[in-house]
Amino acid sequence: MDGMDFQARQKKLHVALERHKVDTLIVSHPPNVRYLSGFTGSAGILLAGRRPLFFTDGRYAEQARAQVKGARVVIAKGGLLAAAAEACAKQEAQRVAIESEHFTVAQLAVFEKALGKGRRVARLAGVVEELRTIKDAAEIELVRNAVELSSGLFRPLLRAMQPGTSEINVAAKLEYAARRAGAEGMSFETIVASGERSALPHGVASRALLPESGFVVLDYGVVLDGYCSDMTRTVHLGKADADERGLYAAVLEAQLAAISAVRPGATAGEVDGEARKVLKRARLHRYFTHSTGHGVGLEIHEQPRLAAGVDTVLEPGMVITIEPGVYLPGRCGIRIEDMLLVTETGYEVLTAVGKELIELY
Amino acid sequence: MDGMDFQARQKKLHVALERHKVDTLIVSHPPNVRYLSGFTGSAGILLAGRRPLFFTDGRYAEQARAQVKGARVVIAKGGLLAAAAEACAKQEAQRVAIESEHFTVAQLAVFEKALGKGRRVARLAGVVEELRTIKDAAEIELVRNAVELSSGLFRPLLRAMQPGTSEINVAAKLEYAARRAGAEGMSFETIVASGERSALPHGVASRALLPESGFVVLDYGVVLDGYCSDMTRTVHLGKADADERGLYAAVLEAQLAAISAVRPGATAGEVDGEARKVLKRARLHRYFTHSTGHGVGLEIHEQPRLAAGVDTVLEPGMVITIEPGVYLPGRCGIRIEDMLLVTETGYEVLTAVGKELIELY
Repeated sequence: MDGMDFQARQKKLHVALERHKVDTLIVSHPPNVRYLSGFTGSAGILLAGRRPLFFTDGRYAEQARAQVKGARVVIAKGGLLAAAAEACAKQEAQRVAIESEHFTVAQLAVFEKALGKGRRVARLAGVVEELRTIKDAAEIELVRNAVELSSGLFRPLLRAMQPGTSEINVAAKLEYAARRAGAEGMSFETIVASGERSALPHGVASRALLPESGFVVLDYGVVLDGYCSDMTRTVHLGKADADERGLYAAVLEAQLAAISAVRPGATAGEVDGEARKVLKRARLHRYFTHSTGHGVGLEIHEQPRLAAGVDTVLEPGMVITIEPGVYLPGRCGIRIEDMLLVTETGYEVLTAVGKELIELY
Repeated sequence: MDGMDFQARQKKLHVALERHKVDTLIVSHPPNVRYLSGFTGSAGILLAGRRPLFFTDGRYAEQARAQVKGARVVIAKGGLLAAAAEACAKQEAQRVAIESEHFTVAQLAVFEKALGKGRRVARLAGVVEELRTIKDAAEIELVRNAVELSSGLFRPLLRAMQPGTSEINVAAKLEYAARRAGAEGMSFETIVASGERSALPHGVASRALLPESGFVVLDYGVVLDGYCSDMTRTVHLGKADADERGLYAAVLEAQLAAISAVRPGATAGEVDGEARKVLKRARLHRYFTHSTGHGVGLEIHEQPRLAAGVDTVLEPGMVITIEPGVYLPGRCGIRIEDMLLVTETGYEVLTAVGKELIELY
C-alpha cells in the first residue's frame, strides 16, 4: 500500500502496549494484521514487539515478501502459532499478549503449549482497534475513494427499480455495477427491502417483487483497496401520501440533527441523542430500534458505536455513519445514512448523494 | 428449511457428546447453529442438551421464531453468553462444553464468569463439523441445486472472455449472472487468473487484462439456500501449443485418476495420492503445490481434507472437491475441479460441465 506508514502505526501500538505493561502482542485478526503490516492475505500473524516478525505459510510467501512492511517475513514450516511462540521465547519477550476477542480458545492452547511452562499470556482486547478508530491521511484517502465509488452507483440504479422486478435483481445490478467500477466486492450483504419488508432493519435482498407503490430501503457498501463504504437511501415507488412524506421528513430531520452534532469533543451518545430527540418530538422514537451509527474502515463495523449512553469522545480522523431509521411493523420503514469524517472543526459529509425524497413513477 | 430433520441431527450430536462425557454443548459457530437449528442469522447461540434452548437478541426475534426448530427460542436481554450460562446453571448441566475452535478467549471469560465458580467448561473441537461431513438427503438436494446453478453459468461466461477485457470484468459478469439465477452470493472470492497470473493458485480477479493467448483459470462457487458450490475450469485464449496441451492433458488425467479412486472405504490420502502419481509420471508433481480437495457444504472448506497422509475414510454422503493443478511460476497454471458425492458404491460427479480443453479464438 503506497503512502501507508506502517512503522508509525506500530510505534503507536508500542506506546499503547507499554500502558498495558506488555512488550509483545500476537496480532492475529486479519484487519489488524493488514493495518500494521500491509499484508492483505488471510493467513498471517504479526509478532508486534521490539523486533517485529511476520509469520505466514508457503502459499503466501511471495505475497508476504511483496506486501509486508515494518516486519521481517518468516515462512513457518509448522503452524504459525507455534512459530510465533518459539520466536517469543527466543526474543526473551517478558510479557506476551494475545488479542482475546479474536484468538480462539483452541489457538491459545496451541500457543501456550509452544511457549512453554511458566510463561503467562496476557489477554488484551481492542488495542489495535482503538488505534484504528483514528484514520490517518492515507486511510482517509482510501475511504473517500470507496465512498465516492458507491455514491456514483446510486442514481443509475434508480432505473432498475421497476415494480415487479425482484429485490435480488436490483441487488444484482448494483453489485455488477460496483464490480465494473473496480470494487473488490460489497462490504456487507446488500439490503433491498421493499414495501412491507422495508420495516425490517436488516432486510437483505430477497425474491420479493418491488410493489407498485411503497418505500424501498437500499443499504449497501463496497470494498475498495480494503476499505469499506456504507450508505442508505430510501426511495418511494409511485407517489408518496402525506403520512409517508411526514415519516420521511422526520427521519431526514433526525439525520440532519445528528450530523450537526458531530464535532471533536462531542460524545457518541450525544450525537445519537440528537437523532432520538427529533424522533421523540415526532412521536416516532419507539420505532427507531437501532443505534445511530458506527465507525467504518477496514471493517464495516468499527468503533465508535453511536448509541445511547456511549461516552466515547469524537476525535478528528474518525470516520462514522449517521443512519437513523423508523420501522413501522407490517407497514413500512425508512432509513437515511451517510458517512462522515470528523474534522478539526466539525465534520465533512463524505457521501455525495442528495437526500430529498425520490418518488419513482 | 423444509425437509430438514433438525431433531435427528441433534440426536446424533447427543450421541457424540456422550462419548466426550459432555451433556451440554454451547454451539456458537453460525454454520453449526444453522445445521442444528435452522437459524440463518448471525447472532444466535444454541444450547444443545437435554432441553435445547436457542438464544438471540431482539433484532432477530421474528426471524428466530420463524426459523428455529428443535429448540425453545429465548430472546436474551443482556448478552447471549450470559443468558446461556445462566440457563446451564438452571438446568443443572453437569458438564458443559464450548466449541474451542470458534469460541474466543474473551467469550470464554464472559461465559465462565456468568456460569459461576467451581464449574469447569470443557473444550471440544470439531464435534458438529464431524457430523456435518456426512450430508443427509435434504442437504444433498441443496448441494445439487447450488452445483447445478454454478454449472449453468460456465458456458455463457465464455463469451465474456475476450482478450483485453479485465479479469474483474469477467468476475463481475459471472457474479451478476449468479445473482440473477437466484444465488445469495458467491461462496468465495472469484478467481479469474489469466496469462502468467494463472500460475497463482489463489489468483483472485484483478485489474489485469486477458491476453491474446494463454490460459485462464476460472474458480468460483455460489451460495444457494445456504449451501456452497465450488468448481474450476481452465480455458485457453487462442490456440494452445503442444506444451500447453500436454500440461492440460496431464492435469485432466490426474483429476480423472483421483475421481476413479473415490469410494467408501478409501482414505482421503489415497485419493490425493492417485492424482500425485499421475503428475509424478509426467514429472509435474513438484508443481502441484496444494491438496487434491476438500469437503463442501454450509461452508466452502469442510472436512475431509484430501491431502497426503490424511487417513480419513470416505463415507457415503460426503461431498468433496477433486481439484489437482499444476503451476509453473512465471509461465502458466492449470486446475480442473469438480464436486463429487460419495455414494454407497463409489461416487457421483455433481458438476455438469465438460472438461475437454476449450480454446477460444
